Amino acid sequence: MPEKLTSRAENYSEWYNQITEKAGLAEHSAVKGCMVIKPYGYAIWEKMQQALDAMFKATGHQNAYFPLFIPKSFFSKEASHVEGFAKECAVVTHYRLKTAKDGTIIVDDDAKLEEELIVRPTSETIIWNTYRSWIQSHRDLPILINQWANVVRWEMRTRLFLRTTEFLWQEGHTAHATREEAEAETKKMIDVYEDFAKNWLALPVIKGTKTASERFAGAVETYCIEAMMQDGKALQAGTSHFLGQNFAKAFDVKFANKNGDLDYVWATSWGVSTRLMGALIMAHSDDQGLILPPRLAPIQVVIVPIYKNNEEAKEITTAVEMIVAALQQKNIRVHFDNDDSKRPGWKFAEHELKGVPLRLAIGPRDLAKGVAEIVRRDTAEKQTIPLDTLPETLEKLLKEIQKNLLEKAADFQKKHTFEVDTYEEFKEKIEQGFVLAHWDGTPETEAKIKDETKATIRCIPLEVTGEKGTCIYSGKPSKQRVVFARAY
Amino acid sequence: MPEKLTSRAENYSEWYNQITEKAGLAEHSAVKGCMVIKPYGYAIWEKMQQALDAMFKATGHQNAYFPLFIPKSFFSKEASHVEGFAKECAVVTHYRLKTAKDGTIIVDDDAKLEEELIVRPTSETIIWNTYRSWIQSHRDLPILINQWANVVRWEMRTRLFLRTTEFLWQEGHTAHATREEAEAETKKMIDVYEDFAKNWLALPVIKGTKTASERFAGAVETYCIEAMMQDGKALQAGTSHFLGQNFAKAFDVKFANKNGDLDYVWATSWGVSTRLMGALIMAHSDDQGLILPPRLAPIQVVIVPIYKNNEEAKEITTAVEMIVAALQQKNIRVHFDNDDSKRPGWKFAEHELKGVPLRLAIGPRDLAKGVAEIVRRDTAEKQTIPLDTLPETLEKLLKEIQKNLLEKAADFQKKHTFEVDTYEEFKEKIEQGFVLAHWDGTPETEAKIKDETKATIRCIPLEVTGEKGTCIYSGKPSKQRVVFARAY
Repeated sequence: MPEKLTSRAENYSEWYNQITEKAGLAEHSAVKGCMVIKPYGYAIWEKMQQALDAMFKATGHQNAYFPLFIPKSFFSKEASHVEGFAKECAVVTHYRLKTAKDGTIIVDDDAKLEEELIVRPTSETIIWNTYRSWIQSHRDLPILINQWANVVRWEMRTRLFLRTTEFLWQEGHTAHATREEAEAETKKMIDVYEDFAKNWLALPVIKGTKTASERFAGAVETYCIEAMMQDGKALQAGTSHFLGQNFAKAFDVKFANKNGDLDYVWATSWGVSTRLMGALIMAHSDDQGLILPPRLAPIQVVIVPIYKNNEEAKEITTAVEMIVAALQQKNIRVHFDNDDSKRPGWKFAEHELKGVPLRLAIGPRDLAKGVAEIVRRDTAEKQTIPLDTLPETLEKLLKEIQKNLLEKAADFQKKHTFEVDTYEEFKEKIEQGFVLAHWDGTPETEAKIKDETKATIRCIPLEVTGEKGTCIYSGKPSKQRVVFARAY
Repeated sequence: MPEKLTSRAENYSEWYNQITEKAGLAEHSAVKGCMVIKPYGYAIWEKMQQALDAMFKATGHQNAYFPLFIPKSFFSKEASHVEGFAKECAVVTHYRLKTAKDGTIIVDDDAKLEEELIVRPTSETIIWNTYRSWIQSHRDLPILINQWANVVRWEMRTRLFLRTTEFLWQEGHTAHATREEAEAETKKMIDVYEDFAKNWLALPVIKGTKTASERFAGAVETYCIEAMMQDGKALQAGTSHFLGQNFAKAFDVKFANKNGDLDYVWATSWGVSTRLMGALIMAHSDDQGLILPPRLAPIQVVIVPIYKNNEEAKEITTAVEMIVAALQQKNIRVHFDNDDSKRPGWKFAEHELKGVPLRLAIGPRDLAKGVAEIVRRDTAEKQTIPLDTLPETLEKLLKEIQKNLLEKAADFQKKHTFEVDTYEEFKEKIEQGFVLAHWDGTPETEAKIKDETKATIRCIPLEVTGEKGTCIYSGKPSKQRVVFARAY
């Protein structure tokens, strides 16, 4: 039997690590802070990529690819950007190794770069430096480009998927003729991310803007979606930045507008990363292992044959092969687990650990009755299904599971979100989830609350009640409640 | 009108550069040796990726992702590998920048890495170091993994797609219990590449093995496919390596075989890269621009409306929208070029430059007659097609173009491949294409011929006549003819 996991109640963080490694999603590599994304984990990430890529293309975006390396000087050009990004990064200083006299391999000092190269932590600078030659007139706008890439941000304390030195992501970088158009793009893309979170990850999110101190380095406004994990903590699941003309000014990107006047170009950028894998794991899974929303599951249905001898095995195999063909016709991703070195009970536990949405077991007695036994991963509910209605039933069940996971997560979020009006109550409730509270709008109060409670303002929600109030900390007037939480 | 290209006859190399930049495929970046892959170029690369990825999955492979960085010491572990790879590479020595007293951004000397990290030039070392913990028993084998990634090999003289410091590729890394199985995998994957080259790139290739001096650093045997460009030079379009137990020994990867004995694991690796974009451009294109095989063309049919006034424009637009819908139903990738700032003649030239396989022009007179005018990019052949049979006709034409491009390239290759039996003749024919000649099998002769003629042995072809002979250079006995050519 696969070893039991540490339970969430016992040690949430250890539970997360164990699921991630034991379900075959990822592991730490020999390079400090960098992970290996294992085949099963990568298959889920591919499903996310495919879904997002289709949504980006449906909203008019094209993919392109820009260099991994960025000249050091580029980072100095946008003043606030360098503060936020260029500090903790991988610096390439040499371009050759050589064999030393003692036979070891050493860095060749004669091959020192004139200007150091930074491994991209994000690509605004290299992309806006490129856009300068692509944009002359309003006819060249908008530019709607996305890039799938790896990025590196040097991290001292890392966690698989959630915070790693190298991670995979997509970064959209668009250029527009007007402020309004760029703002509309920023909002459109945060809506795309919300749609993806809800309909693929089965993850309800709160959409809002970041406070000035939590904003992307170089942005005028940062939109975000925040999701709640099962320990009540928040995870930022996507951001979309309105960059104003900051990068256009830093890289001198001007265009002739319709009147023939030169103006700086307006910019947005937006991204999601392999962090979403962490969100997916923490949002739905239980003490038995991973629970995957069917739309992202590499295997949606696993079939485990039950038999006592070769003759029975043969009979079951023939029947299962017909079932597999029928399910594939409905585009259901099915896996026939016919590994005869493992017992059915072992397989059940393994597929539970891996979060396969539906398990189908079938033995000679089932076959004689023309039925199969189905178990739902999300509810552990068992049912006996006639073989002749199997494809339709499974298709329906997969949809139900997808829906149920979203509802369960929404319900959990609702139960762990509190409106509070005093700082005492705030300190109590912040242990349990999201807190909606009034804030006076100053970075000083925000910093003090963070210092005292480890809670940050996750976002100023876009959906507002219009209710005014007084700041729970300073007692000063507040225009609306904001979302506080501890965060990943 | 888009500017005319330099012709192939005038300056083949300049013609290549101009197509690559002007058709919007790629351009040089601000970082020496690194390219920007532009949206149109990336869209073609995506089509290649999708086709290859499906072929890898159909042959049982899964994707995964390994770190960008490799500890320097890993490269010393496989002796021949370090000679071939670790020398010209990007070396990360520091992990932080800081602001100097004068306000400039400098490398923080306090943040020096204990061991330098190499930006992967290829991933055998980091992957085999990982496989050590994944493999204990024959039950853990085979491992059939592929990775889509960026890699860096420091290049002094670069050319877009053909030789760049950073490039995109896929690298397969498989682990097997027996020599036979690993050898079969190596051959299977070179066959996959041959199939892809022929049926997607429309590129006939010669399949063979490399000589010892041209072999991958660390391989026991390297299989390759070699394609001929229009200047008669060879381009290596894919390689598949049988690595023996070299990496297993270097990284101590052993498994318990069926008898319970410990043995080293057998390995293969195989890859193709964005170099294929260079092959695609050089194999088919002409002095008017790019010519794309329909299966890889982001736009297969472009529709250019012809009109004199708004009323006509409206009428044509309505008709074209119906045509677009009908073509999309057949999964034909169609683009309606309704940009009214450009004249039809300009559009014709632009889409020729971009290699769109079919151009459809339609004006009021055509509409009245219920026809449209079609021009094939590969033959410039013009035909008038009744609108009611359009989808079927275009579908058929796209298949014909795909077939024609392969035949044309095969014909070109045949005409430029010569069997020669004297060194005099060799020196004459090597200017014109591939030369099949007898070679005595020694690296010394190979090196001398390369020195004197710049020609290398591209491969020892798998398809052999069995004809023995004498080496054109040394007069010593030869077992079979090998393929010589100058190469990219």
